[in-house]
Amino acid sequence: MQFHLNGFKTGNPDIAEPSEIGKAAAHADTLPGEVDVLIVGCGPAGLTLAAQLAAFPDIKTRIVDQKPGPLQLGQADGIACRTMEMFQAFGFSERVTREGYWVNETTFWKPDDSHRDRIVRQGRVQDVEDGLSEFPHVILNQARVHEFYLNVMRNAPNRLVPDYSRRVAALAIDPAADVPGGPSHPVTVTLERIDPEHEGQTETVRARYVVGCDGARSVVRQSLGRALHGDSANQAWGVMDVLAVTEFPDIRFKSLIQSADEGSIVLIPREGGYLARIYVEMDKLSENERVAGRNITVDHLIAATQRILRPHRFDVKEVAWWSVYEIGQRLCDKFDDVPEADVATRTPRVFIAGDACHTHSPKAGQGMNVSMQDAFNLGWKLAYVLRGQCAPELLHSYSAERQTVAKELIDFDREWAALLSAPLKSAADPDGVDPAEVQKYFVQHGRYTAGTVTKYKPSKLCAEPLHQRLAEGFVVGTRFHSAPVIRLADAKAVQLGHTVEADGRWRLFAFADRGDPSAPASRIRALCDFLTGSPQSPLRKYTASRADIDSVLDVRGVFQQEHHSLSIEAMPALLLPPKGRLGLRDYEKMFCADRKSGNDIFDMRGIDRKAGCIVVVRPDQYVANILPLDGYEPLAAFFDGFMVPKN
Amino acid sequence: MQFHLNGFKTGNPDIAEPSEIGKAAAHADTLPGEVDVLIVGCGPAGLTLAAQLAAFPDIKTRIVDQKPGPLQLGQADGIACRTMEMFQAFGFSERVTREGYWVNETTFWKPDDSHRDRIVRQGRVQDVEDGLSEFPHVILNQARVHEFYLNVMRNAPNRLVPDYSRRVAALAIDPAADVPGGPSHPVTVTLERIDPEHEGQTETVRARYVVGCDGARSVVRQSLGRALHGDSANQAWGVMDVLAVTEFPDIRFKSLIQSADEGSIVLIPREGGYLARIYVEMDKLSENERVAGRNITVDHLIAATQRILRPHRFDVKEVAWWSVYEIGQRLCDKFDDVPEADVATRTPRVFIAGDACHTHSPKAGQGMNVSMQDAFNLGWKLAYVLRGQCAPELLHSYSAERQTVAKELIDFDREWAALLSAPLKSAADPDGVDPAEVQKYFVQHGRYTAGTVTKYKPSKLCAEPLHQRLAEGFVVGTRFHSAPVIRLADAKAVQLGHTVEADGRWRLFAFADRGDPSAPASRIRALCDFLTGSPQSPLRKYTASRADIDSVLDVRGVFQQEHHSLSIEAMPALLLPPKGRLGLRDYEKMFCADRKSGNDIFDMRGIDRKAGCIVVVRPDQYVANILPLDGYEPLAAFFDGFMVPKN
Repeated sequence: MQFHLNGFKTGNPDIAEPSEIGKAAAHADTLPGEVDVLIVGCGPAGLTLAAQLAAFPDIKTRIVDQKPGPLQLGQADGIACRTMEMFQAFGFSERVTREGYWVNETTFWKPDDSHRDRIVRQGRVQDVEDGLSEFPHVILNQARVHEFYLNVMRNAPNRLVPDYSRRVAALAIDPAADVPGGPSHPVTVTLERIDPEHEGQTETVRARYVVGCDGARSVVRQSLGRALHGDSANQAWGVMDVLAVTEFPDIRFKSLIQSADEGSIVLIPREGGYLARIYVEMDKLSENERVAGRNITVDHLIAATQRILRPHRFDVKEVAWWSVYEIGQRLCDKFDDVPEADVATRTPRVFIAGDACHTHSPKAGQGMNVSMQDAFNLGWKLAYVLRGQCAPELLHSYSAERQTVAKELIDFDREWAALLSAPLKSAADPDGVDPAEVQKYFVQHGRYTAGTVTKYKPSKLCAEPLHQRLAEGFVVGTRFHSAPVIRLADAKAVQLGHTVEADGRWRLFAFADRGDPSAPASRIRALCDFLTGSPQSPLRKYTASRADIDSVLDVRGVFQQEHHSLSIEAMPALLLPPKGRLGLRDYEKMFCADRKSGNDIFDMRGIDRKAGCIVVVRPDQYVANILPLDGYEPLAAFFDGFMVPKN
Repeated sequence: MQFHLNGFKTGNPDIAEPSEIGKAAAHADTLPGEVDVLIVGCGPAGLTLAAQLAAFPDIKTRIVDQKPGPLQLGQADGIACRTMEMFQAFGFSERVTREGYWVNETTFWKPDDSHRDRIVRQGRVQDVEDGLSEFPHVILNQARVHEFYLNVMRNAPNRLVPDYSRRVAALAIDPAADVPGGPSHPVTVTLERIDPEHEGQTETVRARYVVGCDGARSVVRQSLGRALHGDSANQAWGVMDVLAVTEFPDIRFKSLIQSADEGSIVLIPREGGYLARIYVEMDKLSENERVAGRNITVDHLIAATQRILRPHRFDVKEVAWWSVYEIGQRLCDKFDDVPEADVATRTPRVFIAGDACHTHSPKAGQGMNVSMQDAFNLGWKLAYVLRGQCAPELLHSYSAERQTVAKELIDFDREWAALLSAPLKSAADPDGVDPAEVQKYFVQHGRYTAGTVTKYKPSKLCAEPLHQRLAEGFVVGTRFHSAPVIRLADAKAVQLGHTVEADGRWRLFAFADRGDPSAPASRIRALCDFLTGSPQSPLRKYTASRADIDSVLDVRGVFQQEHHSLSIEAMPALLLPPKGRLGLRDYEKMFCADRKSGNDIFDMRGIDRKAGCIVVVRPDQYVANILPLDGYEPLAAFFDGFMVPKN
């Protein structure tokens, strides 16, 4: 954590100085007439986006929700490793690791071959493979995740707090939005207040951009004329959070349990040491039948669970929350308001994210994670366009990148859900699924469910991987995979990836070659000279004159040498930059391989020791480009592809 | 973290259900007439004690301070590894590790042999030796530590909040305190309110116990007729927290800097990446001269710093806080109100802790740490006596244990401070101190300054170490040295020591022998049978009938086997106990050696694999006893030595 840059300040360093917007927000109890961004919906996607945008003092954001206040109960609970990496960027991963349940191993249960009405343990697997992420796979009530985001928003410069009890009644986009001289705030949203004190009142907000994070029945999506397409597997499932006493020995392990004739369970232990979530297979539904018609009660869920877990006793002492749902996979074919045919001529003004774009079964624990990544992808792009740093065409990349990810999710979920609901192989049904297949599929898709497989296709924002061989472990288009390093200035062992905070900045990691980086002719010094001195340098072209040198593109150096063998005072000046009101030096730009621990980042990520390389990382933590240390021209060209020079 | 034991509850699990005392406290704006414990002073000692006592729903505590509100600035900043272990027990070590500066290495500077007016780096050492603690040595503004404690207090069952702007005017102990039928609340404290709204008003509080954590000029100490004894080294030092721009390369390393003729500096980098604390040697004082008479200003401190750091430029951009002080070591010879001669006939009613008992120079970073450990030692003892679980004689052990520790501190500090102020060896002064000696002394005393050397002498609370060889690494009388283990029920890698929370409970760690612990004849099963079944069992004698089985003595098992080879359902029932309103099972009592990582607790702590052993740990995390697994009689006798059977 860095703070005190502009002078010492007492108190909690997570609480930023309020911006002008933040000061005004403190007194507001109605929505302003004009905002930069209106977010509809306080779910995981909406709150991620709000937390991201609240960090920019010059962007006026509001977030509304139908509900009267924050979520208290139930819903999602799976937090993938990749999501933890993002939480780190927002500053609350420690809270989640402390409070949540860690999924360390997953166990698999099947019918006993000799007593088909009893289950036996078939196997156990490590849940996350070694080295996949520095974070564990965690389970925590979605309400707590919301609360952490609400804290980030409250403490951010803009002091963003949701406006509750508001329902979108209408949304209209001015057709002149893209016309030169057209309206600055072309999206008009009419909101009904639905709390008793304000019932019947409406508010009208004009926004530059609107983002619908308003769930599967999204009104924003409907107002765009878009729909979720897909199908249902006609299978009802129940879900419940319970406090129970049981002899089932794996009650504190994530367990996939398949009985011979009574269906399947996905058991997820929960935070606090006592609670467990149980997804339990219920009735087959007829074609077009809705689960609501079945009048399934929590007693049915408990009874089904007890039958599946035989011979283990399972006494439910308290049900904290429960629900029933039918399996289905549905997807929207585009995540903004611009029809495919108009992409060349219009730029998007309204977006949808999360369940508004994709719905599926909850058992793979993907929904909340993918939704938050939707928002993390969109947030910085909106900020760059609103600040004039990128042209509005950039915003097409949101739907392009995230609709592909959602499609993969839907395909995965369809296969996984089918596998879990399929009849098991038995003497009577030789064509059924072998429980060992389920375990195998789970292991094969471990990286996918951890969220680390997402790979954006080459585009203006993710270069063609022409120089991938310089750093095989930082795959262009995938998330920057952190590794341990030693900070040169204070010998602290840190994770390099944790320098990528949710502050909207791009990162340029310069991995030095074998030579002495402080030598006058070192290639890393030449790179720094280019970045500070050349008119072609993206640092010079895109950083406002009075802003800190690292405010748009944050350059950091990583060296192969043991940290005692380098002298900080001899290193290139760009890596010890003066910053802030007082011109204080930032000592956190230089890192060395952690040779003592044996975890050398150059080895771990396959970095070419002879050549070194540049790794460019997007504000949402994805690797955008790998270049040679002297690849000045392609580096400049990459940023020129989407950035707007400062005026 | 464990929660939801008595039913699911939404929200932050760090916020406990309020007790009756907590509900009443919410509406109080004056002090009650009677309390169990009155704490005077909101420094580190007072807040540690308040945080500890606030956890007991049946103990009525108040804490007062002269100041109008929480500390904002300055004072101590060093947080030793041992203190971090205690913070873990209070639930906020993650906050401190995230926010603080980590002292990873310390560097040493001395005059250049060829240019005596310039300093050169003499050496660097790792600050904390490998394996000494699972926590780093951290630097963080004392005000932040206070804030974390205030949070713990606010969220505790008793919702304890300090009562500010109150000065102790008088304190009297009823001489009939120890007489049967004497007053229940024998200490009367008169407080003056000193805020403008209440100026001139006084309050009278009668307390069972009073603890003076009111600093070097403690009014509570004076009211006992006690004084600090010691001497002054007649040496003035300055201290300042600064934001500076410098070419001194080790500005982000803790550095001990000795110049030839300009004095010494202890440089402590601070949290946030920019701030630094500088202790700088100033004038020699005459006998009995006070530093205040010298009119030393911050400009003098800066100028001295600049002279010592030559040839490195050092431009101070902002001074956040500064002060001057004279070195001295002073100690009180007893930490409670009972004269040595009366120990056999009276029990203490008033205690002093922290700076009220011991003052010394701040440069070894010990003051705040030792003060907090004073309070951690006292807190659980007060609770046990107030609840009738121990006889009041127990309270004599506080002064006995902590005065010895303070004496060691004073002796260490005198030596260390003298070394840092002594003239350096040179051609002209061959008898001076060799800078290499300073480095050597620092390394030799690393374990001491980390706070891990404290060793309580044999007493009723720390047994004679007759069976120490069963676990050489858990030294009786020292803090329980944590090590990694795998939790059996969910395969989570955890630190065994982190089960010792600041909840006032004793721990009994049963390290099993090599045999199968689930076997009918296993020695660990026999121990559990004794503990649950025998009338001699401390578990049976000292646990109230309707309380959870682990509410006084928390029994945990540690096994040598790899966790996959043990079946939780076959283990002794005491290690899977039903608890709480719903009878839910506690799955966090059993652990296995972490064989995969190679960090096997049995090897790391020298536990006899053939015999196993019992390790008894006090509520303040100190090892109280080591016994054979079948040492039922000595185990019973140990607790019989100070506990009062339930009625």
